[in-house]
Amino acid sequence: MARASRRGGAMITVYGFSPSGNCHKVRLLLEQLGKREDRDYRWVEINSAIGETRSADYLALNPAGKVPMLALDDGRVLVESNAILHWLAEGSAYLPEDPWQRAQALSWMFFEQYSHEPCIAVARFICGWTPLDSPRRAELPALREKGRAALAVMERHLQSHEWFSGPAYGIADIALFAYTDVAGHGGIELTPFPAVLDWLRRVRATPGFVPMAAPDARAQALIDASL
Amino acid sequence: MARASRRGGAMITVYGFSPSGNCHKVRLLLEQLGKREDRDYRWVEINSAIGETRSADYLALNPAGKVPMLALDDGRVLVESNAILHWLAEGSAYLPEDPWQRAQALSWMFFEQYSHEPCIAVARFICGWTPLDSPRRAELPALREKGRAALAVMERHLQSHEWFSGPAYGIADIALFAYTDVAGHGGIELTPFPAVLDWLRRVRATPGFVPMAAPDARAQALIDASL
Repeated sequence: MARASRRGGAMITVYGFSPSGNCHKVRLLLEQLGKREDRDYRWVEINSAIGETRSADYLALNPAGKVPMLALDDGRVLVESNAILHWLAEGSAYLPEDPWQRAQALSWMFFEQYSHEPCIAVARFICGWTPLDSPRRAELPALREKGRAALAVMERHLQSHEWFSGPAYGIADIALFAYTDVAGHGGIELTPFPAVLDWLRRVRATPGFVPMAAPDARAQALIDASL
Repeated sequence: MARASRRGGAMITVYGFSPSGNCHKVRLLLEQLGKREDRDYRWVEINSAIGETRSADYLALNPAGKVPMLALDDGRVLVESNAILHWLAEGSAYLPEDPWQRAQALSWMFFEQYSHEPCIAVARFICGWTPLDSPRRAELPALREKGRAALAVMERHLQSHEWFSGPAYGIADIALFAYTDVAGHGGIELTPFPAVLDWLRRVRATPGFVPMAAPDARAQALIDASL
């Protein structure tokens, strides 16, 4: 298939919760694509932490009740953050053209959803978005240990590679950046992973980079009280 | 890029554990591709249940110590079952060419690794490959409940679609088939999901279909004792 944009001129609407790393992935790529392709998109804020993904209006659009969701003008929707990234990046520099490099990028994106997000993002969620007496807090030690194991896999890769998406920055970096950058919110320190810290700095320096929204005051207070 | 095979004539070696659904996905696709393209591959059995993924020889090939792993003759390796499927299927009828359909297939494959495998496959693993007095068995009720929620999402899709990969059978079906077909090993009954049962029958009827290896006698006895 051609390397032309697959998205044509249709307006894209993203339903997302700004402090969610899975949602921020989509915003970061769209912002970075926008710098190159003058693309436009709408962002509809859906606060999944207070049940807005469970409203009747939202469930009519997306019966799975999850964010992020990408919607086209004709009503078609796409869910799963990394599938959205892959679709948006097709034909751009953020997805390598070489089949083997593409496969490696996709491999890191599956690693992110299987071995990284369920530990690092979930530890952060428990710290910032559950009460201090939540029974879920008993999960934190195991989640942090598994999160550190995932970071060790990333550290090993970064000792001999600059990026996760192939020879250049791309969607596997965006997928892994989201929750790695805020691992500290879940009580996972990054200082034992110097190559990861260097890579985070390289990602932040890419053209068009936008940071994720900070947690609101209530979530930040819970995070501070969790450490 | 062209729809020609990306794999050229290089011999592929798959390191896998035959009763693992993640590994069987790769075998099933290769068997089905072989019927069309006269492809050859080697299968190296690695019993992850007795620690063979942790041997020095295996860790030298794959420091992450996981199966399945695909290796090329020149030593390059690819991990993550669904990334392997995507790479192998490129240029074949098992991966739709239409970008939106491809994105939907990928979306289901991320769903499989995030919302399906960690419940349905893990419940099966605990039942068949941990002792009857394992403390992990306390996880089973919650895993089964989440597994049924994932099956309900599949059931809803199948009420209006024949396949998960677009208009035809393909890699999202292969990814979801693997552990759905053996959900009963983990104590998750499929009778409440008639569209899922019909789809499983359609998958089994596809050309070149091969079933997954049955658990060995010891695992089967543990499964039987778990129900």
